[in-house]
Amino acid sequence: MTAAIDLNADLGESFGAYTIGDDLALLEVVTSASVACGFHAGDPMVMTRTVRAAAQRGVSVGAHVGYRDLQGFGRRAVAMPPAELTADVLYQLGALEAIAKANGARVGYVKPHGALYNTAAADPTVAAALVEAVRGFDSGLPVLTLPGCEMWKACADAGVRAVGECFADRGYDAAGRLVPRSAPGAVLHDVDIVVARAVEMATSGAVTAVDGSSVRVDAESMCLHGDTPGAAALAAAVRDGLRRAGVELRSFV
Amino acid sequence: MTAAIDLNADLGESFGAYTIGDDLALLEVVTSASVACGFHAGDPMVMTRTVRAAAQRGVSVGAHVGYRDLQGFGRRAVAMPPAELTADVLYQLGALEAIAKANGARVGYVKPHGALYNTAAADPTVAAALVEAVRGFDSGLPVLTLPGCEMWKACADAGVRAVGECFADRGYDAAGRLVPRSAPGAVLHDVDIVVARAVEMATSGAVTAVDGSSVRVDAESMCLHGDTPGAAALAAAVRDGLRRAGVELRSFV
Amino acid sequence: MTAAIDLNADLGESFGAYTIGDDLALLEVVTSASVACGFHAGDPMVMTRTVRAAAQRGVSVGAHVGYRDLQGFGRRAVAMPPAELTADVLYQLGALEAIAKANGARVGYVKPHGALYNTAAADPTVAAALVEAVRGFDSGLPVLTLPGCEMWKACADAGVRAVGECFADRGYDAAGRLVPRSAPGAVLHDVDIVVARAVEMATSGAVTAVDGSSVRVDAESMCLHGDTPGAAALAAAVRDGLRRAGVELRSFV
Amino acid sequence: MTAAIDLNADLGESFGAYTIGDDLALLEVVTSASVACGFHAGDPMVMTRTVRAAAQRGVSVGAHVGYRDLQGFGRRAVAMPPAELTADVLYQLGALEAIAKANGARVGYVKPHGALYNTAAADPTVAAALVEAVRGFDSGLPVLTLPGCEMWKACADAGVRAVGECFADRGYDAAGRLVPRSAPGAVLHDVDIVVARAVEMATSGAVTAVDGSSVRVDAESMCLHGDTPGAAALAAAVRDGLRRAGVELRSFV
Repeated sequence: MTAAIDLNADLGESFGAYTIGDDLALLEVVTSASVACGFHAGDPMVMTRTVRAAAQRGVSVGAHVGYRDLQGFGRRAVAMPPAELTADVLYQLGALEAIAKANGARVGYVKPHGALYNTAAADPTVAAALVEAVRGFDSGLPVLTLPGCEMWKACADAGVRAVGECFADRGYDAAGRLVPRSAPGAVLHDVDIVVARAVEMATSGAVTAVDGSSVRVDAESMCLHGDTPGAAALAAAVRDGLRRAGVELRSFV
Repeated sequence: MTAAIDLNADLGESFGAYTIGDDLALLEVVTSASVACGFHAGDPMVMTRTVRAAAQRGVSVGAHVGYRDLQGFGRRAVAMPPAELTADVLYQLGALEAIAKANGARVGYVKPHGALYNTAAADPTVAAALVEAVRGFDSGLPVLTLPGCEMWKACADAGVRAVGECFADRGYDAAGRLVPRSAPGAVLHDVDIVVARAVEMATSGAVTAVDGSSVRVDAESMCLHGDTPGAAALAAAVRDGLRRAGVELRSFV
Repeated sequence: MTAAIDLNADLGESFGAYTIGDDLALLEVVTSASVACGFHAGDPMVMTRTVRAAAQRGVSVGAHVGYRDLQGFGRRAVAMPPAELTADVLYQLGALEAIAKANGARVGYVKPHGALYNTAAADPTVAAALVEAVRGFDSGLPVLTLPGCEMWKACADAGVRAVGECFADRGYDAAGRLVPRSAPGAVLHDVDIVVARAVEMATSGAVTAVDGSSVRVDAESMCLHGDTPGAAALAAAVRDGLRRAGVELRSFV
Repeated sequence: MTAAIDLNADLGESFGAYTIGDDLALLEVVTSASVACGFHAGDPMVMTRTVRAAAQRGVSVGAHVGYRDLQGFGRRAVAMPPAELTADVLYQLGALEAIAKANGARVGYVKPHGALYNTAAADPTVAAALVEAVRGFDSGLPVLTLPGCEMWKACADAGVRAVGECFADRGYDAAGRLVPRSAPGAVLHDVDIVVARAVEMATSGAVTAVDGSSVRVDAESMCLHGDTPGAAALAAAVRDGLRRAGVELRSFV
């Protein structure tokens, strides 16, 4: 039996004259592209170019929905009534789908971005509002999130498929949670270590936590970061390491 | 044989705490609601409320697409490459469709707003970029525009159905064009005159121009304004006058 | 000895084609106009018209600074580092001052708006960031806030003058705090009662709390609301009642 | 007698998480920094960092005012009434001045950006609206523009000092105008040629046009570009070349 995993990255985060990330390099590595939808990053033209490039390479397109906060890059939570959040997410899903469809692609999954990812993981009301949007749009669309979090549960409650993701370059605690970015061991930079952990997660479904214990990581997708210097090179190293270890790279869509 | 016409109005133009127009009153009158898509006016929650209210009353929903210019209410032309305009329009079409579908409605037509309406009517490149978006989204979707204008021609060239609209409260010149707002006779305010002209247009397909001649008005839809004081009352008077004259009011969708 | 008080209201909250409030009517009543600075409401043209109208009537102009959130009308807190908030407030203060100076007025005071008002009243870090902006702009500028709150303390710590405000149409609890809007007795609508309380506060420095006790209200300014139906009439009634009671109406600037 | 010239560059064009240009490298080269004011680029925090860095290096700060169009980076003209443009420019001038003053700097000059630069150079109404803002803000503030253009004339009419600028890396036609970017010879990339032309302009007040003739360039300031790859290196080469030629580099403020 062969191990298989999806590689996803956040793409299409440029805006107007502003460029972030090396999208074309990442698209040679990932099997799923989470495309910003114009609220926290991205604009209609950037979305157009990104879905076209993804389609040309057979990379799945996901809607990377976020808070409407370009200034804060979607990293600041915005308190709003659940019905407004549902409307905001539907708006983004539809916008990306229209651009995708007209350019030879389709929205194949949903992934909340930044503060919305974190809020939906922790707050059942936010999670439910997000799932409500997914169901209203297409109840067959999977949602990429942290296994076991509130978003995961809200998907289960609503009959929406939740797809777990793991992080090759992040530290985990003994409970299987990500080490907060403010704590030591939160982000790993050594390429060999990151690749080794990626292979460990993809082949065994487990990873070594910061306390040395082994924790389960139930993930169908592995998130690679795209907006840091050296991101494309690290992503390529992870891909190559996984392939050498016999792991099949394929989209979960 | 019975004369029939559609009544359309621009709705859903409120934004956040800002309210424009008496949408609920207009929805009792019109058969088609052109709903702002968040670029020149409207926001996801306003769009949600508007499509729900339209669906409840059996009123058709159209995507009222515009330039991204809330500050100028879409009344200022924004010069941009055609591909960007296509992307902007696709974005708006998809956003409204997703919100409509999740709330029991569908986008049944497209109408450009304000400066985009005027630019697309006069500039074949802008018109073609707009039609390109409609085709990429759904080539069966009709476009509401001025009969004979560049947008009309671009639709014909692309095999997209163009639906002509007329204006009950606007003056026409002998060539069948609208009198510019800066000229005398551009806007009619007398209710009886507006109603009489509405009936004339709907039953005869012609209207009296400012020079006294009779001009053809090939319209399947009649536009009523919603954001001026007394707009709802004037709209209701037009509707009642048309009904009394035996004109059937029905959506062209 | 004569009692005296300032009457302030939030003005200049319109945006582009969107109108909120009857500014001209309120400007006939108040002695201080808190003018929105384009972040949560207002735009440069609205600011221009508002400061001109205030200057013509001898009404003081204050900078009504808020979170950059037009969609939420500044009623949603935005988490941001203190240095960013200081920069955002400086930006707004300078923008309004430039427009005021070119149009015969000056910024005479600062009042945070909506969520920023509440956050600064409760959170010493936010309060300090706001005061930092005021000091950087003009340390002689007074700040309108709730007596005794964190913003009040931050002003005292920094040597900035804090001016206390009271609310004629809001209920107070026995500790002198405003009754939350979700609780009974939060907002008073009866004109006679509101006027009587306004006079009580202005002449005695105290008001009857919801439990019947009398609480101190150390206020140099009384806030009138401008964006509700009947606001202008209520404001005029309060002004007239205060005058009849011999209270002098004058700006604290 | 010593030749002297100012070197200016557009800086502070980053926005939130988006970075454009190598501001710190350019600040080591220029004597004047035209700082974006948050309409076409920049945000309050970026403005804060930029004016601080400029002040630390003794570099003059100018207000780089533009159209409110972050999506288009201020490169698209926005049609608006002159009074609105005046208000928009005043808003930006005041915003930057407040941030500058609180951080040890002052706004020493004004330079329109992108489409506003071009529109003001060609359209006397736009130029007058811009000068009106400068006069309302501080009539002693110089304006950086093309010698002889409509903006130049509007400054002369209003008694505002116009400071001419030239471009080391742009081609000129025989009439002293810049070769349009779409034409051959518009932009020069060879470092040696650019440096030689910079020295020629600074020492002789003339430059060789595309047709080989010599044209006058009455400039007190030379514009260096900051947002292209290699910009900082080219700028440093120009600076070094000017110094070697004995040209004194000093701000015109």
